[in-house]
Amino acid sequence: MSDKVTVLVAGSWGTALASVLAANHPEVYLWTRKPEQAAEINNSHTNQHFLPGITLPPNIIATTDMETAVKDSKAVVIVAPSSAMRQVAGALKPFWKEGMLCIHATKGFETETVKRMSTVISEELGCSEGEIVVLSGPSHAEEVVRLCPTTVVVASADEQRAAAAQELFINNDFRVYTNRDQVGVELAGALKNIIALGAGLSDGLGFGDNAKAALLTRGLAEISRVGVELGANPLTFSGLAGLGDLVVTATSKHSRNWRAGSMLGQGKPLAEVLESMGMVVEGIRTTKAAYAISLNLNVQMPITDQIYHVLFQGRTPRSAVEALMGRDRKTEMEAISQETWEQWHS
Amino acid sequence: MSDKVTVLVAGSWGTALASVLAANHPEVYLWTRKPEQAAEINNSHTNQHFLPGITLPPNIIATTDMETAVKDSKAVVIVAPSSAMRQVAGALKPFWKEGMLCIHATKGFETETVKRMSTVISEELGCSEGEIVVLSGPSHAEEVVRLCPTTVVVASADEQRAAAAQELFINNDFRVYTNRDQVGVELAGALKNIIALGAGLSDGLGFGDNAKAALLTRGLAEISRVGVELGANPLTFSGLAGLGDLVVTATSKHSRNWRAGSMLGQGKPLAEVLESMGMVVEGIRTTKAAYAISLNLNVQMPITDQIYHVLFQGRTPRSAVEALMGRDRKTEMEAISQETWEQWHS
Repeated sequence: MSDKVTVLVAGSWGTALASVLAANHPEVYLWTRKPEQAAEINNSHTNQHFLPGITLPPNIIATTDMETAVKDSKAVVIVAPSSAMRQVAGALKPFWKEGMLCIHATKGFETETVKRMSTVISEELGCSEGEIVVLSGPSHAEEVVRLCPTTVVVASADEQRAAAAQELFINNDFRVYTNRDQVGVELAGALKNIIALGAGLSDGLGFGDNAKAALLTRGLAEISRVGVELGANPLTFSGLAGLGDLVVTATSKHSRNWRAGSMLGQGKPLAEVLESMGMVVEGIRTTKAAYAISLNLNVQMPITDQIYHVLFQGRTPRSAVEALMGRDRKTEMEAISQETWEQWHS
Repeated sequence: MSDKVTVLVAGSWGTALASVLAANHPEVYLWTRKPEQAAEINNSHTNQHFLPGITLPPNIIATTDMETAVKDSKAVVIVAPSSAMRQVAGALKPFWKEGMLCIHATKGFETETVKRMSTVISEELGCSEGEIVVLSGPSHAEEVVRLCPTTVVVASADEQRAAAAQELFINNDFRVYTNRDQVGVELAGALKNIIALGAGLSDGLGFGDNAKAALLTRGLAEISRVGVELGANPLTFSGLAGLGDLVVTATSKHSRNWRAGSMLGQGKPLAEVLESMGMVVEGIRTTKAAYAISLNLNVQMPITDQIYHVLFQGRTPRSAVEALMGRDRKTEMEAISQETWEQWHS
């Protein structure tokens, strides 16, 4: 088999993963729709809009031609924004060959259908969902390209594919663990962005570290509950893709979701926040999707509900966070009741 | 019953809890051994060494006389350093009356005996452990005295006492939940300081947010495992006293344990770190106690083990953190195995 590997879409995380792969493999093809971005990557070995100040490895070869990007690759890594995933997977389909490993690292849902990314990709490629591998975990792109030690998880219902993805990415700076709970890893990575937005709101309002820690605690319980309803193993939410990624997303200056929440908390309108970010903020779309899920499944998601109303219904951040700090509960275990957990683990 | 309440020892957290109580009760007595500190609190309404820049409520009355502090109080809150707990509880004993509520908010073990604080207090007062209430959770003193919203948990095997403690402290800025798992809340609060030290080490070495998030994830699993061996409910570690307090302690600039770890990571010797802190760093003693527990119970505590060797055996912080980032595990669930969790929840 060839040594060629491919990454689709040259955003910050796609470019960072291409850099990791370039340390392990002789040729990494990076596909983008934008000719000027491809030229910049090939000529200057930079991607200034997404990773300012970073010099990329010279064996990353950018192209706008999908066939050139994918032909004879042993693995294709898709890191499209969730809203573009169906389109990108569809563009890949004509060049997709059985035996290629397909990994995705996108944290979100298709908003209209509320489908997970593995589902969207498998529908477009005409394969089973279990043939897809999900890569997730606490991993700011900016740190990965600077070779800060990073630990992620690759998950697939097919353990052999997960192991192949681990082998593809692992090196001394980038630690990769496997997990069989593809659904849980995918859900944790997507849903935690809602809680990170909430943490940003709290910080933007100046509420402090004590309040944020309480919000993260309740938030992880909330997304675990809904994850279990959707078929996840609750333990996954205590792992790298859940707790780990939540902590890094909600407390790091690199996090877009936290930054967007923080600006909203400071009173900036959503349109202005989105414009100033210049990149996709997945948590905003994910809030809409999760709100729909909570209504469909009749699962309580109090934090998601408040953030949905701030984003789309004009509720003020202060009244939302104050409602979450409210007096309604008296015992800590009401949120994660012993009975519920026993049920999860029976 | 009188409206008088008492706090023993005027450190930063004791003084902050006295401030919370002063918002709810007409008279709060704050006991200290130091006459000059008592005079400062009574005359200037400040406690500059521990809470610089803060004006305290005027209804906090400091005294060096235990009888004056405790006589006719309805509740005594002990916030002594873990190493002084036995002595302080012993000094309280002659004035202790049945019917008084006893709450403690100290996060550590008695190093020599590896006993929890509830055990130490109950031995000195001659009561049962279940008559003590533990207060814990994500709560930096500096934020509490500034009225930043804060959420804590009060735990006791005796639910009525936990409810009485909740009633004593709760107000709009200070949210209090009850929990029956006294042992778990006590263990989580103590053990999380070890992981916060580790997070500081990682940050001091410049390893970044991705590495820290991975360390926190493995750390919470580690302290949950040993907690369960010691009789805790694992859910408590997912709550305010576990996850919540770990996040705030490991990511906040206010945290002494994180700061001490960070200085060690930067290469400062332990003696110099301790001197520059000017306050107790509970995580250092707790590491010694937990190391003894892991040997006694034969439970693996890899993070605790590495930090113990850095603190007391001359291991370099870099080799410790690199060992923790090592290649030994392949699947994520090896740390928290499904079997173990099913056992916890059966």
